[in-house]
Amino acid sequence: MAKVAPISGFPEWLPEQRLVEERVYEQIRSLYRSFGFVPIETPAVELLSTLVSKGSDDREIYAINRHQAIGEGAEFALHFDLTVPLARYVAQHAHQLSFPFKRYQMQKVWRGERPQRGRYREFYQCDIDIVGREELPLAADGEILAVLDTAFATVNFTPHVVRINHRKLLQGLYRALGLNDERRSAAIRVVDKIRKIGNDGVLRELTSALGVEESVAQRIVALATLEFPVEELRERVMALGLEDELVTTGVAELGQILSLQSEATRKRCVIDMSLARGLEYYTGIIIEVHLPQFPDFGSAGGGGRYENLVGQFSNQKFPGVGGSFGLTRYIGLAFEEGLVPVPKPGVAQVLVTVLAEEGRAHLEAFARELRSAGVATEVFLGTPKLGKQIEYAERRGVRWVVFQSGNGFEVKDLASKTQVPTSAAALIATIGAAS
Amino acid sequence: MAKVAPISGFPEWLPEQRLVEERVYEQIRSLYRSFGFVPIETPAVELLSTLVSKGSDDREIYAINRHQAIGEGAEFALHFDLTVPLARYVAQHAHQLSFPFKRYQMQKVWRGERPQRGRYREFYQCDIDIVGREELPLAADGEILAVLDTAFATVNFTPHVVRINHRKLLQGLYRALGLNDERRSAAIRVVDKIRKIGNDGVLRELTSALGVEESVAQRIVALATLEFPVEELRERVMALGLEDELVTTGVAELGQILSLQSEATRKRCVIDMSLARGLEYYTGIIIEVHLPQFPDFGSAGGGGRYENLVGQFSNQKFPGVGGSFGLTRYIGLAFEEGLVPVPKPGVAQVLVTVLAEEGRAHLEAFARELRSAGVATEVFLGTPKLGKQIEYAERRGVRWVVFQSGNGFEVKDLASKTQVPTSAAALIATIGAAS
Repeated sequence: MAKVAPISGFPEWLPEQRLVEERVYEQIRSLYRSFGFVPIETPAVELLSTLVSKGSDDREIYAINRHQAIGEGAEFALHFDLTVPLARYVAQHAHQLSFPFKRYQMQKVWRGERPQRGRYREFYQCDIDIVGREELPLAADGEILAVLDTAFATVNFTPHVVRINHRKLLQGLYRALGLNDERRSAAIRVVDKIRKIGNDGVLRELTSALGVEESVAQRIVALATLEFPVEELRERVMALGLEDELVTTGVAELGQILSLQSEATRKRCVIDMSLARGLEYYTGIIIEVHLPQFPDFGSAGGGGRYENLVGQFSNQKFPGVGGSFGLTRYIGLAFEEGLVPVPKPGVAQVLVTVLAEEGRAHLEAFARELRSAGVATEVFLGTPKLGKQIEYAERRGVRWVVFQSGNGFEVKDLASKTQVPTSAAALIATIGAAS
Repeated sequence: MAKVAPISGFPEWLPEQRLVEERVYEQIRSLYRSFGFVPIETPAVELLSTLVSKGSDDREIYAINRHQAIGEGAEFALHFDLTVPLARYVAQHAHQLSFPFKRYQMQKVWRGERPQRGRYREFYQCDIDIVGREELPLAADGEILAVLDTAFATVNFTPHVVRINHRKLLQGLYRALGLNDERRSAAIRVVDKIRKIGNDGVLRELTSALGVEESVAQRIVALATLEFPVEELRERVMALGLEDELVTTGVAELGQILSLQSEATRKRCVIDMSLARGLEYYTGIIIEVHLPQFPDFGSAGGGGRYENLVGQFSNQKFPGVGGSFGLTRYIGLAFEEGLVPVPKPGVAQVLVTVLAEEGRAHLEAFARELRSAGVATEVFLGTPKLGKQIEYAERRGVRWVVFQSGNGFEVKDLASKTQVPTSAAALIATIGAAS
């Protein structure tokens, strides 16, 4: 007998859970489209060289090979995010795309991480990005922030907060503190770990590993603990007394991006000066979505501005800004914490019961009429006692149960427990009125 | 510069093509749900032992391994169909499912085939199966046939024919011709290749490889050339004069399955005695969907009844019947042959133009009103001349273009070329009436 066991890190839902996942997927997709984003999908597979060259954690890449050629070294690998594939896609198809290119892409990605709570090796990411050719207005950053916040507000299994920072602001502040180019980038990577290693850890790494002066390191840590409402951005940054051209630019850009948001979005945003996001390619706004009721969960989504993502594939410059909704992790949390009611495992609205096989063809015709009016209808498979068939409907959350009665039909509404004569047309009308 | 090249066998569409694919995917999904099927999704990855043990072509399996561990032998592999994962899923979750279990599953699968026209290494399959515990009524076979035919009739890029045969009928006829158990199964596999190797090829393999008598082999080939309308099933089989219990059962079962179909479906069905489908596990009806206008295309979908699919994973018996719509191949053909109009690469209904950044926040508020009423709306990113912004709308198929005009708004309908004053509410009403 072949082994049947869950594979750690590869989530698999029951049908009733998958119903929830499909619904949420569709909500997000529909929201992305409402802002005019168009879909792309890229193969699960990229050239291994495409993925490795992007300086990610190579250890997490799943290489693939034909089974019988295993051991020969792989040419292909599974994508670990949707950003590198987007960059490759834009470089490859640029002549067939029109810019700014606003795309959504909602696919599974794979990472060979050590599995742990809330971490998966296979999971859905729902990405939106806006990519310009040579230039991309700041309004695009505003749009990404609006879409990402609205996506979480739409699904809304638990409240969320959008943490925001700006790479130019960080760079400017660190420069005003006397850090040179190289040290600034290194410092950003260290500060990014503050939730993991704590203030002391950051302090230690800044001073010992990067050789930053103790007093400057202390100011950097103090900066990283700042968190304030978006309305206070200008005054709080001014109060630091750290003047630099990049500080001015960062504050101005953030101000403009925030001015484009709805009141509701602005209230969910907070400036978080500890937010650094380690990824090299961010150059402007950086965004992370957090769930206050689950502080240990980490980020449920995020994104930011990158000046030249496609650089590795093309000599042309393609600046972009994007965001990602971590669908599988968010849904996984919702199931685990009971944040979402899981429906019954059924989608039909009507069950047509069958008492004898001879009558089935007639009942099938009735069901076809309902389906062609958009009413999801099952015809019972088999002919057990009626009680069993009604039980089947109840277990699956089917509300209307149809019986043949003489030459006509009757329908029982399992919600109101009433039973009345009906016809296909009458039932279609009843269900239309009830929904 | 990293290499940017298409990977042979891994299709990648432009956004306007992906719009078509998403629409068709949604049509199929919606149809499957209308019959009461519930969704599942399984990981892309199964244990390698799960996939290899199922006696498929091992050479086509893609094994995966973490990049840095490549060469160590793989534990996992990408699924090559959705049937083996279904079997594993049912065995694993049987205690949490209710039977008959009617599920749809629409995912990508991977096969390391040599790429050639119309063949892909990564492609979507859209599967439906009904799985019973211990038993499954014949009505389930009728339902699968109805769903699969209706799916093709719904998408309908080109006419289709549903070719039908029955394993019991084949077994019975071959037994009546004197073939023993083992030879019958071998003969079915040979006949399955008739479109590839021709009548002579089949004759040769039957006589030389299987040692079937020349005269019997000739009758088998003659049988395999029979093709007739479903109404003639009984009389045409009777006319063969080959009596066997399995012939009687096969004809009765096919008759019952066909009696449950709509007139439209029955007209698209044909009995094809050459149809054998090599897969070992089929035991009853076998189905293949063909596209008469593209005779070399092969099958666009197919399926059948299997008495004990889950056998490799469980001691319980789980009979099933299922079908599959080969979405990627079908779409690929449609693109290649121009069977479907490819839309413009846009999804927004409205473009709000922007002439100065100072006005953007106000225009964003207008756009939010439209979106919250379900109207997909873009706000132009940047502030070039109006002509450029209108061109943008035209290129993406956006019909309504909004301009700020004094304290109010005007809208231009690019279809009728008329321009009138408007408000968010008025525009929502106009668009609602136009669609």
